[in-house]
Amino acid sequence: MKAEIIGIGTEILLGQVVDTNSAFLARELANLGIEVYYHSVVGDNTERLTSQLDTAMRRSDLVVMSGGLGPTQDDLTKQTVANYLGIPLVMDQTAMAKIDDYYHQTGREEAPNNALQAMYLQGATVMPNDNGMAVGNFYQQSDGADVMLLPGPPTEMTMMFNHYGRGLLEAAYHRNEFLVSRVLRFYGIGESLLVTKLSDLIDQQTNPTIAPYAKTNEVTLRLTASAEQEAKAKGLLDGMEAQIQARVGDYLYGYGDDNSLEAVVVAGLKDQQLTITAAESLTAGQFQSTLGNVPGVSTVFPGGFVTYSAEAKAALLQIPSEIIEKYGVVSEQTAVWMAKQAKKTLQTDIGISFTGVAGPEELEGQPAGTVWIGIAFKDQTPFGRLIHLAGTRDRIRERSVMAGLDLIRRQLLTLK
Amino acid sequence: MKAEIIGIGTEILLGQVVDTNSAFLARELANLGIEVYYHSVVGDNTERLTSQLDTAMRRSDLVVMSGGLGPTQDDLTKQTVANYLGIPLVMDQTAMAKIDDYYHQTGREEAPNNALQAMYLQGATVMPNDNGMAVGNFYQQSDGADVMLLPGPPTEMTMMFNHYGRGLLEAAYHRNEFLVSRVLRFYGIGESLLVTKLSDLIDQQTNPTIAPYAKTNEVTLRLTASAEQEAKAKGLLDGMEAQIQARVGDYLYGYGDDNSLEAVVVAGLKDQQLTITAAESLTAGQFQSTLGNVPGVSTVFPGGFVTYSAEAKAALLQIPSEIIEKYGVVSEQTAVWMAKQAKKTLQTDIGISFTGVAGPEELEGQPAGTVWIGIAFKDQTPFGRLIHLAGTRDRIRERSVMAGLDLIRRQLLTLK
Repeated sequence: MKAEIIGIGTEILLGQVVDTNSAFLARELANLGIEVYYHSVVGDNTERLTSQLDTAMRRSDLVVMSGGLGPTQDDLTKQTVANYLGIPLVMDQTAMAKIDDYYHQTGREEAPNNALQAMYLQGATVMPNDNGMAVGNFYQQSDGADVMLLPGPPTEMTMMFNHYGRGLLEAAYHRNEFLVSRVLRFYGIGESLLVTKLSDLIDQQTNPTIAPYAKTNEVTLRLTASAEQEAKAKGLLDGMEAQIQARVGDYLYGYGDDNSLEAVVVAGLKDQQLTITAAESLTAGQFQSTLGNVPGVSTVFPGGFVTYSAEAKAALLQIPSEIIEKYGVVSEQTAVWMAKQAKKTLQTDIGISFTGVAGPEELEGQPAGTVWIGIAFKDQTPFGRLIHLAGTRDRIRERSVMAGLDLIRRQLLTLK
Repeated sequence: MKAEIIGIGTEILLGQVVDTNSAFLARELANLGIEVYYHSVVGDNTERLTSQLDTAMRRSDLVVMSGGLGPTQDDLTKQTVANYLGIPLVMDQTAMAKIDDYYHQTGREEAPNNALQAMYLQGATVMPNDNGMAVGNFYQQSDGADVMLLPGPPTEMTMMFNHYGRGLLEAAYHRNEFLVSRVLRFYGIGESLLVTKLSDLIDQQTNPTIAPYAKTNEVTLRLTASAEQEAKAKGLLDGMEAQIQARVGDYLYGYGDDNSLEAVVVAGLKDQQLTITAAESLTAGQFQSTLGNVPGVSTVFPGGFVTYSAEAKAALLQIPSEIIEKYGVVSEQTAVWMAKQAKKTLQTDIGISFTGVAGPEELEGQPAGTVWIGIAFKDQTPFGRLIHLAGTRDRIRERSVMAGLDLIRRQLLTLK
């Protein structure tokens, strides 16, 4: 089974966007036991796309393409593939109804070419777009290479692949075996250290396979086992996971593709019926906004405070001005006061605070990346935790939020 | 001048590393006026690399390759190119002395293949590696495509290109012309509609060229003009921009690659010495966190409120409970009260609020995507604006924030 990946888009060709889709797809295909021999990128140009498609269809068994499914003149992928294969495009009524609804609901002006996004190759399996409008296609041929068409925007592409594409490929190239995967999610350990600690397991991997993947601020491992029975494949996964847990289990926070540190924290809070609030300085609302990512968070999170200036800390949280004057805003004392006053004001079980230096300038003589997190947890004595972070302003703020979530997660574990 | 880029490395092919080199090189070549028509990636495999090289040399005038110049068994690029072109590899004595020195100084054991890193294609210009050991090559042919070989590690590759590669290409393909670009940023209009409104300009584009690009929640256009004098190129850009402004100027919010709606809003606030606060329900701090992306925002933003629950709206903002009971949380009245109470409590010039349905469930009988934004702007009568948004929970929250920023931007323009 030889596959290749084609990324389509002039913005990739010109280097205005880095092509992350091809790397994602290459990893996913490898996990399915499909070997990838080539990637290529072409612009939104019929002639060159046809030429690249012809090369790919002749030398591979499966061609996976992303990009060019949108509604503009530039979006030519579907039409070009249809022409090349000599089959018509037909309309998916469900997708068309969704597009019409969108314009109806939002009152926006509908561009004439929008219907193109609902069209598919006659005979293909349609993949719905759960994060956008353009549908995907999986077209199988008895006498030629198969083609999978995916949208270009990474948020749409990854969701479509996770929800539909992977399953279609598994079913199409079924090997009389059960293929079972498990994704382990780690926070607080870098990819290189994780891989070093597991290097012998990774070097010897056959079944299960182990695929590490570094995401922003976390690392995941996808374990994939195959066996004649599903239970046997799961047993293989359990055995491998136990070995991994013994070495790096302290950093394992959760499982699954659609999971996150905030989802685990919110689930833990709901589980123990605890409410939380926050007072944020350098993160300016990003911790609370991250909690807000999780549907149904309102049962454990009433709201909180953004206290960017010293005046706001005093006005909204009634922190005694002598505390800030004596210790400074970037201090354990201020962090602890912020956390406990936030908790008290909103009468929650937990208060967390963030105060520190996002940069690029230093503050109170402390360098960018110096961050205090305060925790007021139930009846326990409030405490502060100092962390030192590297990177740009955005990264420092984002990493502060992740560190705060992990502190709460670990506190919740102590109650079990 | 047609160029293409080949990335070489099994780790890229398998998706373990994202290929950022190709995007860098594509941008740099575009800036030099060299058109890039294809990117491709192949593994460290002589046969497939030769096949890809052959395709590239036949269809392009310049082939830029990165990767595979190192000392390991996997590193095959230079030997493969030498074989393909039928020319020998010879040693660069300066590079070899540098390699020997390194091993002498560090006392490390020298790998047997290290000398390979100092070899170059006979007749090529050698590019020193100021951040590593493997030299680069620029090989020009009178009767075939030119080849540039660069190392794979991005820190080595970019430095070599910046120090040597760009200059060699400029000298080789000197066009006696200035190339000037300008990026226009639009909010509130989708890519498809923007492109429709400019379709004749885009169809006729020659100089300047017009490249549209949809980013998350915004669209940019990159205009690029070339002329013998810089002033003339700028004049061409001005002329094209004036035509674009006449059609879609209302959506144009700023310029430049490193810009954003929040940066424009914060600059406008500083410019007019106005302070802002926010009360956020469905966005849960994301508006304030987005303001916090901008360095130095503290002079115009003291902090604000996350009032997710009705209780928090009452407790933190003293909104009369009969308002919420009578009109509901998703209402103009609640939005207006949130904005004006936030402004009053923190004594700012502007208060903005967000209340609505992030989804996936409906709220108070209103569907996901129904959002009220309240604005209390200086001494003006506070008002609410209803918007209907589509997409996932994340998208709805993110788009609410963008809509709020744009409302503030437009209010600031009325003061000018």
